[in-house]
Amino acid sequence: MTLLPPPRHAVADVVARSLAEDLGTAGDLTTNAVFGPDDISSGRIVARRAGVVAGLDASVSVFAELGGRVTVELAAADGDAVDAGTTLATLRGNTRALLTGERTCLNLLGHLSGIATTTRGIVAAVEGLDVLVADTRKTTPGLRALEKYAVRCGGGSNHRFGLHDAVMIKDNHVAAAGSITAAVDAVRRATGHTVKIELEIDDVAQVPEALAAGVDIVLLDNMSIDELRRAVELIDGRAIVEASGGITPDTARQIAATGVDVISVGWITHSAPRLDVAFDLNG
Amino acid sequence: MTLLPPPRHAVADVVARSLAEDLGTAGDLTTNAVFGPDDISSGRIVARRAGVVAGLDASVSVFAELGGRVTVELAAADGDAVDAGTTLATLRGNTRALLTGERTCLNLLGHLSGIATTTRGIVAAVEGLDVLVADTRKTTPGLRALEKYAVRCGGGSNHRFGLHDAVMIKDNHVAAAGSITAAVDAVRRATGHTVKIELEIDDVAQVPEALAAGVDIVLLDNMSIDELRRAVELIDGRAIVEASGGITPDTARQIAATGVDVISVGWITHSAPRLDVAFDLNG
Amino acid sequence: MTLLPPPRHAVADVVARSLAEDLGTAGDLTTNAVFGPDDISSGRIVARRAGVVAGLDASVSVFAELGGRVTVELAAADGDAVDAGTTLATLRGNTRALLTGERTCLNLLGHLSGIATTTRGIVAAVEGLDVLVADTRKTTPGLRALEKYAVRCGGGSNHRFGLHDAVMIKDNHVAAAGSITAAVDAVRRATGHTVKIELEIDDVAQVPEALAAGVDIVLLDNMSIDELRRAVELIDGRAIVEASGGITPDTARQIAATGVDVISVGWITHSAPRLDVAFDLNG
Amino acid sequence: MTLLPPPRHAVADVVARSLAEDLGTAGDLTTNAVFGPDDISSGRIVARRAGVVAGLDASVSVFAELGGRVTVELAAADGDAVDAGTTLATLRGNTRALLTGERTCLNLLGHLSGIATTTRGIVAAVEGLDVLVADTRKTTPGLRALEKYAVRCGGGSNHRFGLHDAVMIKDNHVAAAGSITAAVDAVRRATGHTVKIELEIDDVAQVPEALAAGVDIVLLDNMSIDELRRAVELIDGRAIVEASGGITPDTARQIAATGVDVISVGWITHSAPRLDVAFDLNG
Amino acid sequence: MTLLPPPRHAVADVVARSLAEDLGTAGDLTTNAVFGPDDISSGRIVARRAGVVAGLDASVSVFAELGGRVTVELAAADGDAVDAGTTLATLRGNTRALLTGERTCLNLLGHLSGIATTTRGIVAAVEGLDVLVADTRKTTPGLRALEKYAVRCGGGSNHRFGLHDAVMIKDNHVAAAGSITAAVDAVRRATGHTVKIELEIDDVAQVPEALAAGVDIVLLDNMSIDELRRAVELIDGRAIVEASGGITPDTARQIAATGVDVISVGWITHSAPRLDVAFDLNG
Amino acid sequence: MTLLPPPRHAVADVVARSLAEDLGTAGDLTTNAVFGPDDISSGRIVARRAGVVAGLDASVSVFAELGGRVTVELAAADGDAVDAGTTLATLRGNTRALLTGERTCLNLLGHLSGIATTTRGIVAAVEGLDVLVADTRKTTPGLRALEKYAVRCGGGSNHRFGLHDAVMIKDNHVAAAGSITAAVDAVRRATGHTVKIELEIDDVAQVPEALAAGVDIVLLDNMSIDELRRAVELIDGRAIVEASGGITPDTARQIAATGVDVISVGWITHSAPRLDVAFDLNG
Repeated sequence: MTLLPPPRHAVADVVARSLAEDLGTAGDLTTNAVFGPDDISSGRIVARRAGVVAGLDASVSVFAELGGRVTVELAAADGDAVDAGTTLATLRGNTRALLTGERTCLNLLGHLSGIATTTRGIVAAVEGLDVLVADTRKTTPGLRALEKYAVRCGGGSNHRFGLHDAVMIKDNHVAAAGSITAAVDAVRRATGHTVKIELEIDDVAQVPEALAAGVDIVLLDNMSIDELRRAVELIDGRAIVEASGGITPDTARQIAATGVDVISVGWITHSAPRLDVAFDLNG
Repeated sequence: MTLLPPPRHAVADVVARSLAEDLGTAGDLTTNAVFGPDDISSGRIVARRAGVVAGLDASVSVFAELGGRVTVELAAADGDAVDAGTTLATLRGNTRALLTGERTCLNLLGHLSGIATTTRGIVAAVEGLDVLVADTRKTTPGLRALEKYAVRCGGGSNHRFGLHDAVMIKDNHVAAAGSITAAVDAVRRATGHTVKIELEIDDVAQVPEALAAGVDIVLLDNMSIDELRRAVELIDGRAIVEASGGITPDTARQIAATGVDVISVGWITHSAPRLDVAFDLNG
Repeated sequence: MTLLPPPRHAVADVVARSLAEDLGTAGDLTTNAVFGPDDISSGRIVARRAGVVAGLDASVSVFAELGGRVTVELAAADGDAVDAGTTLATLRGNTRALLTGERTCLNLLGHLSGIATTTRGIVAAVEGLDVLVADTRKTTPGLRALEKYAVRCGGGSNHRFGLHDAVMIKDNHVAAAGSITAAVDAVRRATGHTVKIELEIDDVAQVPEALAAGVDIVLLDNMSIDELRRAVELIDGRAIVEASGGITPDTARQIAATGVDVISVGWITHSAPRLDVAFDLNG
Repeated sequence: MTLLPPPRHAVADVVARSLAEDLGTAGDLTTNAVFGPDDISSGRIVARRAGVVAGLDASVSVFAELGGRVTVELAAADGDAVDAGTTLATLRGNTRALLTGERTCLNLLGHLSGIATTTRGIVAAVEGLDVLVADTRKTTPGLRALEKYAVRCGGGSNHRFGLHDAVMIKDNHVAAAGSITAAVDAVRRATGHTVKIELEIDDVAQVPEALAAGVDIVLLDNMSIDELRRAVELIDGRAIVEASGGITPDTARQIAATGVDVISVGWITHSAPRLDVAFDLNG
Repeated sequence: MTLLPPPRHAVADVVARSLAEDLGTAGDLTTNAVFGPDDISSGRIVARRAGVVAGLDASVSVFAELGGRVTVELAAADGDAVDAGTTLATLRGNTRALLTGERTCLNLLGHLSGIATTTRGIVAAVEGLDVLVADTRKTTPGLRALEKYAVRCGGGSNHRFGLHDAVMIKDNHVAAAGSITAAVDAVRRATGHTVKIELEIDDVAQVPEALAAGVDIVLLDNMSIDELRRAVELIDGRAIVEASGGITPDTARQIAATGVDVISVGWITHSAPRLDVAFDLNG
Repeated sequence: MTLLPPPRHAVADVVARSLAEDLGTAGDLTTNAVFGPDDISSGRIVARRAGVVAGLDASVSVFAELGGRVTVELAAADGDAVDAGTTLATLRGNTRALLTGERTCLNLLGHLSGIATTTRGIVAAVEGLDVLVADTRKTTPGLRALEKYAVRCGGGSNHRFGLHDAVMIKDNHVAAAGSITAAVDAVRRATGHTVKIELEIDDVAQVPEALAAGVDIVLLDNMSIDELRRAVELIDGRAIVEASGGITPDTARQIAATGVDVISVGWITHSAPRLDVAFDLNG
């Protein structure tokens, strides 16, 4: 399967801002004091724990942004599941660039790989079932493009990227419009024919009206296994069925086994612990 | 104790970027289709789990940035420990602004409060001991100003903000300079008199040279309880003593009890789970 | 029908850049030399030709951006069809702000209203038929959010906003993948469940494979009226049918009458002439 | 004649913003799903209609900005009049970059070449007469540097670039100052000696005072052929004479033949239809 | 005489960047630790030395940018010559905003007022003579709009704002073109009719060719008093005459008395010492 | 001694903004009219007066930013003291880039070298004494990173870079807190262990409380030689001693000889005259 890369400008923007906040106006006081501009070193980026790699290209672009003539040889690729101790990349170039960029590089790599690793865990839990593990809009401010890429690296699938690329009708919208039918009609008249319409419901009784209104996706929020099963049966392939709420590594398989097409999980982006990665300068 | 606020421009920058990634060029398809520009609603932000609040002002500034005439009444303050179910703020204004800004507001608030809550946990573990719980530079790319603020909200203390505001001499620097003494001399000649010099050591035997070189702070990395105790004794108040490595809620108290002045902990910023916060629109 | 507004930041960004290019580093040499900072005038924005208004709010925000205390009373709304001579807004405030902002305001208003007016023309041509008039990605660089909004003001519908919010499989993609089926499979595996898949075909013979592959939208490019009719019949409601190519005010109705759901037209954004609007300062 | 290029940063800024609006945070869903990062293709940019080329260098810089290793061989130059079917450039490199950048490249090239082509039309209409065809400030928001460059490509001449680089005194300024003389005095005292002063008049009777005040340029707005002739005679070389208003391809020659030095035309920038350009990927 | 203000966005940009470099990511450590968010103070901005005020509005906008509710009462205006000890403004509002913004406010005010004061000195030296004192492009990087405004505040006149708003032909251009005539022809063909052409010469013998070529301004660089006199006589009102080089407060009057129209002086922007201004918080 | 370089992004930002203000939207009218895109020239940057070089690398990066293929050979290094007439760099490449970038390059180089030269003067005045010559926050808006680098080039030392990287308690803070002790306690509780605390006093009688409170640095403001001596004696190595106020090349040595560790001088950044540097194009 092809792994869709994040847009280049989104990566460049995050890298530039991260370096700016670390360097301030004074730069790297320590490294610049001890090393001269022509000192050369080599080193390697290592995974200290087993996990799934995400953002390796983006992370090493830190060194180019610093202007150091650093050559990078990748020893792993985004999406790879690696063991603890695996070398992910070897680098050689200006010592100043290597040491100044180290923390920014690792912060990005560890954060994104943490999300990929967490995603992979839940993907593995539903292995063999015909279900997608999708992310949500619960991402860290400013990092949506990269975090959704990390979810893809982990084998997950992307839900909408924002309020702008798909419709999601929730209870407040239904209440304001007067009915599911009225809400769907309103969004259909206002948005284009390339936009999918998803409706969130918390009661199986809402399914018939949802189907009649022609929604593309039905989101079953916080339903019991039984309710999920009944909804899937009722929908019977006439809309994509997504389940959310209370999905943990323990419950994921049982929920997925109800026949839903997608399970969406917020914590793979908002609460994934960092993957421990390190930079070892050669002796 | 006064809680230092994050710089206003750092907050504004994060808020603007977060909204831009959520709204894209098409905006909120769903809400704008269902609600008119003059519809008015009210609602409240609620903590669904107990935790420590951080970033409440910053989070609600989302609604002002959207241009909605939204009035906000804060019911809690950053740094407050709140129970599950506590209302943090009540809001009233344009329904479009409220619903469009909801997720961006909650993403910021949940992320920062998660860090504050995690920090408070480790601060509580060392209660009564004369020790600071400090963060590190292991922050999420682009969010350092806000995450370090969240650490302060949690009762933690800030380590340096970047490579630019304090010196941290590590083994690579010592090796390149030839000795601790040479490294300290190099940074002292190159940097100004307002900059503190910290030296990371992993062997108690390095303490005497560190003190002779006149470092301001000694960082004891990954030492045993016994080694920490011996180092503290040896340093005897002539430098600030900081411990790092292997600090967990379980080990923190024992480590702090060795007499070190500071324990620094990376995971309070890089692996804190989000605090569950929600926005409830009134019926 | 609700008219979805453009995101506020997109408007602000265009307004700020337009003013910057007009003012440079020296500002408005003429007006600042003749008028003092406290001079006050009033005036009105007038349509010199009949047309459809678009971007009125955005255009008058120029005066706020200039810092002039200018009060604006709108006499028309975006989407209104107005006669030649209609007053669109009356303004009163600092003469400097009014005269300095005049051209930037009118450039934006005339450009967007030109698009709305052109769109309305083609929408009128298909009146009574159940067909959407959609735009394309052939927009002026940097103005996509606003130009697509102008299309909505004209009664048109928005096609995808970019490469990021819907899939469009063209002949090159099919050729590379090996077949329509393979191409659709590739995008379905790589993209999320909220994304619609559109396939462009130029031969009615491709319809069965397209339907079998489960595409959401079939784009019939440059087909004859006969071919369009046959394709519509063949598709029979199992996908949305869109026609493009050679659509002019003269041919639009005939093409629409073939039963396609959408006709998409590039020239409503890329070649619409400006609507003539003027600013009259009161005597 | 040398063709002045647009500033490099103005080009880079437009290219970056155009790509960002097309790619959003998800990137090119279709192309990235079907093609791998190492796929290579070649293709060519072709003019589908006869016209004048403008912005070719700028347009192909899209591919460099995307990071694709794309080599470009230009087969035409800005300012060239080309026939329908002419190849303007051949490209070879990453298929992803070629297909992702295609629309942004063509939007820019088609827009600017449309302006150049339109300009050339009016320039041709006055061929042999000693008159400049100048643009105005009626440009598309955010594109002034590039659109004025396109005018130059079409053989036109640039009027002032904004409010900042030349003085233009209009009736409102004259009314506020009390007289032409007073208005000219005010701007002369306030602005530097490198700035030209232009005065717009709509009555030949204003010429003597204009000349006495020493204006550099007299703009005759919406005058009849007779009035233009009389004004030219009266001015007799003591100021540059510019005519505006009602200039069409049909009337341009007659107006120019009155002896005015410059005719300025707003619609060459604000209402020029796009030149039809296409990108053909090799089979 | 009306004083042309700097463009609002240029001021806002400088203020925002200045605050950002002072506040970094940690903000004002001292003031925020000692004062609470609701503490209120008042104070005044005072000139400690006599001089000419420039940038007062811009400087106090620092406090608004900080978000403090600070009310400002101006007691002087840009362009005023004030004695040592003069209060320029009184302020009242959040103590945090006042103390945090103090240095940024004073840096801007002192820098611009220094330029205005220096300019006024040379303007005074030529009092009564019909000559303009003009600045050059030798400005501090990033501050051209504001520094040229400060020159205006000092009673000086602005030379061109950059390479873009007037032509200046120097010896290298003449050498490349082959002759003065050829160089003037080249720029006349390439640039529009609103642009003035200035020619720099260092030999009176070049005057006839310059006049024949029709340049608008002749710049006499580093000529003796005698040469200046001869050139003025020779030019005899057919072009504006500007002198530059070796102009000091001591020589300015003698140079101006040769009859040149303009003397241009680089050091009023690049080497003006700061005017000493201070902020006194009330006791 | 190693000279710490300014952060790369700070240099790039200043260079980009400086070029933008010089080029506007029209670019270099003169050079582009006379020279073609492929014309090649060479030249050299020369110091016309003796001084200390600062910002040479940064200044020549202007030519790269312009996109000219310009090769640069440096003949001097930042920090070098050079005689009048010294060639600092030789350049060869596109004539357009060389002439267009010349003024921006020289403005930056002359400004920074002026600061370095001024700094070196005061450093020389205290030669042989064990004292640092430090800068202040009195820098030109937007240029702090580069001006502080220029101070380092001149042999000076950097005081804090902003409000964010060190504490400076002044009389207002003491007054608000109630006492020196209270103020120091407040900042110590609020800020981290890597931050130094400096206290400004104007009375020797405050020394004992300052020492008891444990401040790291005592700033003696505007004290007489006698008072300085007494303060140094009293402090006796228990804090760093800094003197400020009334320090001129004439008084610096006497002040430094009192035994203070640091003298801090605002005018080396805010009032240093430009070093005269020029660009000579080869004949």
